Amino acid sequence: MAKDLVIGIDVGGQTSKCGIVDARGTVLVQTVIRSDETADAQEFVASLAEALNRLIAEAHVEGRIRGIGVGAPNGNYYTGCIESAPNLAWGHDRVEFAKMLQEQMNGIPVSLTNDANAAAVGEMTYGAARGMKNFIMITLGTGVGSGIVINGEVVYGHDGFAGELGHTCAVRHNGRACGCGKTGCLEAYCSATGVARTAREWLEMSDEPSELRSLDKITSKDVYEAAKDGDKLALKIFEFTGRILGEKLADFIEFSAPEAIVLFGGLARSKEFLTEPILKAMNDNVLPLWRGKVNLVYSSLKESDAAILGASALAWEL
Amino acid sequence: MAKDLVIGIDVGGQTSKCGIVDARGTVLVQTVIRSDETADAQEFVASLAEALNRLIAEAHVEGRIRGIGVGAPNGNYYTGCIESAPNLAWGHDRVEFAKMLQEQMNGIPVSLTNDANAAAVGEMTYGAARGMKNFIMITLGTGVGSGIVINGEVVYGHDGFAGELGHTCAVRHNGRACGCGKTGCLEAYCSATGVARTAREWLEMSDEPSELRSLDKITSKDVYEAAKDGDKLALKIFEFTGRILGEKLADFIEFSAPEAIVLFGGLARSKEFLTEPILKAMNDNVLPLWRGKVNLVYSSLKESDAAILGASALAWEL
Repeated sequence: MAKDLVIGIDVGGQTSKCGIVDARGTVLVQTVIRSDETADAQEFVASLAEALNRLIAEAHVEGRIRGIGVGAPNGNYYTGCIESAPNLAWGHDRVEFAKMLQEQMNGIPVSLTNDANAAAVGEMTYGAARGMKNFIMITLGTGVGSGIVINGEVVYGHDGFAGELGHTCAVRHNGRACGCGKTGCLEAYCSATGVARTAREWLEMSDEPSELRSLDKITSKDVYEAAKDGDKLALKIFEFTGRILGEKLADFIEFSAPEAIVLFGGLARSKEFLTEPILKAMNDNVLPLWRGKVNLVYSSLKESDAAILGASALAWEL
Repeated sequence: MAKDLVIGIDVGGQTSKCGIVDARGTVLVQTVIRSDETADAQEFVASLAEALNRLIAEAHVEGRIRGIGVGAPNGNYYTGCIESAPNLAWGHDRVEFAKMLQEQMNGIPVSLTNDANAAAVGEMTYGAARGMKNFIMITLGTGVGSGIVINGEVVYGHDGFAGELGHTCAVRHNGRACGCGKTGCLEAYCSATGVARTAREWLEMSDEPSELRSLDKITSKDVYEAAKDGDKLALKIFEFTGRILGEKLADFIEFSAPEAIVLFGGLARSKEFLTEPILKAMNDNVLPLWRGKVNLVYSSLKESDAAILGASALAWEL
């Protein structure tokens, strides 16, 4: 029988999702394992392989797996390594992840990249970017990630780490401290945590009434709910967030002239409040030749499947 | 006899340079014609073809020209057109330049792109970027242009106009007006005209003594000469210019993870004053993983030949 299936694995700090996917992008079976129960990479890979073999048996697809795609923080496409990933209990050093997993899986080829690049490949293979050769995927989650596609190929750069748009500079002077050690990064403003931070800062700085004042700990979801209730401060927070993102998108367009920007991730669910300020700032700041010409689209993948699909899409290229 | 030669043409606002080039990058013969004596594109192309045929006859290389490469402002690689180039007397509309020239040259294939992209191809074929697959070329001339190479190929983007890094935003608030209609563009600070503008602004804003005060009209070359004399204000101008460029280079590195940044153009001749502040700002602002790892190199092409060589390099790909 033809090897017509692939496996997608999304490695996260707390859990890792894996699933078996067919060529149409249907996730046949999936499971979740803990990523944080061991500090030993070899042990984690062994438990992952065990889970995959259980999935293969469950779906009765022995011998039909063509390849395995992995999306992981700080994953390097060229080397197959996860390099110094602070959020992974077993990832502080250089982990030869692809090689280790391939060995545990009896030689099934493994391809690895970072999560945002995997999301871009997923969107190109199964989602909103199908048929596009030039687009930029921005993942708005806890952080801001990016996957850049030029001429139908993900940009990995000289060393395999290209596409760190979340750490380009959004605010040059007196910018917020970012987890990466720099200040003013896009991620410090336009991630879910950035939005919550804007809310906390603004509540402290002004006396403006807002339903957010009654909350102990504010999340971006709270800001979204408040905005839906018409809370003016919450609406202004999304306007601010959208403007900062749109300003940087203008820079990115001037770099690679994409057909579209694709937004993905938890914060992208607030699109009813983000789209307008993003588009306004993007078009106000980009060269006239691109004004109104670059589409802003949102991921069309089913959220629960997206991470697995993105990673699995890598495996078709093997 | 093998078709072992190419022609390179650098179209400028006032003059256009053209030359016949061999595979080693030697310019066998070259000439310059006026670009600004007619407002009719067809007429300009006819005079250009005439000049090329004279060169071919002069070098006795009839039948040996494999292709013609053209670098021109607003030149589009995909369409072969020059689109709305304000500095070309005959270029205000859409000019089907490649097609027109090919017809006039009895069908010799013509490839066209903008001048900065041509410079990048030239540097990759004959110059400082030989052997590099991932680099960013920044041309520091009257304006700031750029040619981006990823995986050994120039990035043209969805529409053929990618690589306008001179118009990314260097100063977000109260930035200088740029010729493109936006404000705060990199080009408004880090071009030769930007440097002269900084000098004029700073002389006006302060009483600091400087030999630049005695001049009627200041050019970037004057600032360079003053810096060589140890003029403190002139030195500070280069520090400022280098810092702004370095800050933006950090963003560009986070986009495409190049092996090197290649600087080219008149202002790049001031490298003795620019290199240090550029490198400092670049490394201070880039993610730790690239700190100290991306080379800053200067074009190694003989300046008088560089424009022709860059354009000619395009023709080898035909």
